[in-house]
Amino acid sequence: MRNIKVVLEYEGTAYAGFQVQANANTIQAQIESALNALTGEEIRIVGSGRTDSGVHAKGQVINFHTCSRIPADRFAAALNTRLPRDIRALESSEESPQFNARFSVKSKTYCYRILNRPAPSALLRNLAYWVPDILDIEAMNRCAQQLVGAHDFRAFRSTGSDVESTVRTVTACTVEADSEQQTVDIRVCADGFLYNMVRIIAGTLIEIGKGRLPEDTILKMLESGERNLGGPTAPARGLYLEHVVY
Amino acid sequence: MRNIKVVLEYEGTAYAGFQVQANANTIQAQIESALNALTGEEIRIVGSGRTDSGVHAKGQVINFHTCSRIPADRFAAALNTRLPRDIRALESSEESPQFNARFSVKSKTYCYRILNRPAPSALLRNLAYWVPDILDIEAMNRCAQQLVGAHDFRAFRSTGSDVESTVRTVTACTVEADSEQQTVDIRVCADGFLYNMVRIIAGTLIEIGKGRLPEDTILKMLESGERNLGGPTAPARGLYLEHVVY
Repeated sequence: MRNIKVVLEYEGTAYAGFQVQANANTIQAQIESALNALTGEEIRIVGSGRTDSGVHAKGQVINFHTCSRIPADRFAAALNTRLPRDIRALESSEESPQFNARFSVKSKTYCYRILNRPAPSALLRNLAYWVPDILDIEAMNRCAQQLVGAHDFRAFRSTGSDVESTVRTVTACTVEADSEQQTVDIRVCADGFLYNMVRIIAGTLIEIGKGRLPEDTILKMLESGERNLGGPTAPARGLYLEHVVY
Repeated sequence: MRNIKVVLEYEGTAYAGFQVQANANTIQAQIESALNALTGEEIRIVGSGRTDSGVHAKGQVINFHTCSRIPADRFAAALNTRLPRDIRALESSEESPQFNARFSVKSKTYCYRILNRPAPSALLRNLAYWVPDILDIEAMNRCAQQLVGAHDFRAFRSTGSDVESTVRTVTACTVEADSEQQTVDIRVCADGFLYNMVRIIAGTLIEIGKGRLPEDTILKMLESGERNLGGPTAPARGLYLEHVVY
């Protein structure tokens, strides 16, 4: 058995998320079905993590074990002949037997994309979150820095999520405006993420940018652990799993 | 009767093009239907020009006459309540009775977007033309300059098109690579365009960029008027009507 790693890009709009669920069209189900058609094997894939319905990926990583003789670096192109056009395999390689797309993760980067202009966009309707208000990018950047470091992020997760520890280490958080594209990208790099963590960070930074929440909001959320001090969970369509480091 | 101008953005993927045709879903039909719902009037719109099926717009301009009392600058937002999400009105204004979105055009800018990287893209599948080959951007830019000026562009139109004169003035043609986005944008500004002119320019510059056509191709096409000296007509999905000047 060989252990194959594949890097994926997908648009999450049409899917009920990454993970296989009964009676739902998911990214995982599409990939497993394509692998089955290619290899004749019943293959279960492991993803670096789940993404919710509507969330996109530019660099999701999966791995799976196979007896197929398809050369490791040809799996990407082979998968693309069987996958729908809104899921593309970007590259594939053979890894050591120990490699696990979920448990071997060292860090991940998510990007939250805002379209910041007066008019809504047809072209980005599913690819960014439209915020027509004027945003104070400097203030957003100052507050983004407060997230950096090892913190208990329990104020930055949706209720109902259940994990042993809510301590994560954010190594970078930047807010970058592109005046030509009229976009604002919030990029968060961390060793791991709680459920909805980036969307709550984005929703909170946006309210700070609008001047509707004070600049000590994030510090207070980290201190108190209170979710309700923050902004709303920003919509899925702005979120991209950008990059996974192993 | 007031004369209203509206600037539109749309994704052309789902449409049979801009212009109304029997039994086809077109941009014009969607807008006229939305205007009818808003005003109760049977309104015919005039567009700055047609776009083909799959071609996008970031700044298509239309005008129409109405007795409706909706304030001119509110038409954009009002239309957006009635239009599908892949068509958005960006702004609206009242113009003089003489203004005609088609005949008052001074110049138009089209952009042809190439995704230039080894792997195809899920996110840009309908929004750019994927060219995995290495492109000589310098050579493409040199040849793009040969298009600038007043020329007979009959070698740069699809057969079957029927216009009185095939002379047009190209005021700028640039080829710009963005290494971060891995895109190459071919931007053409002219006083008018022949049918498929930008897609033939793009298809020819791409072949020059690949080294498959010589650098005097465009000069020879302009001299001889022979369409078959050029590259193929590049696919619709890379083309954007970007801006119209009046």
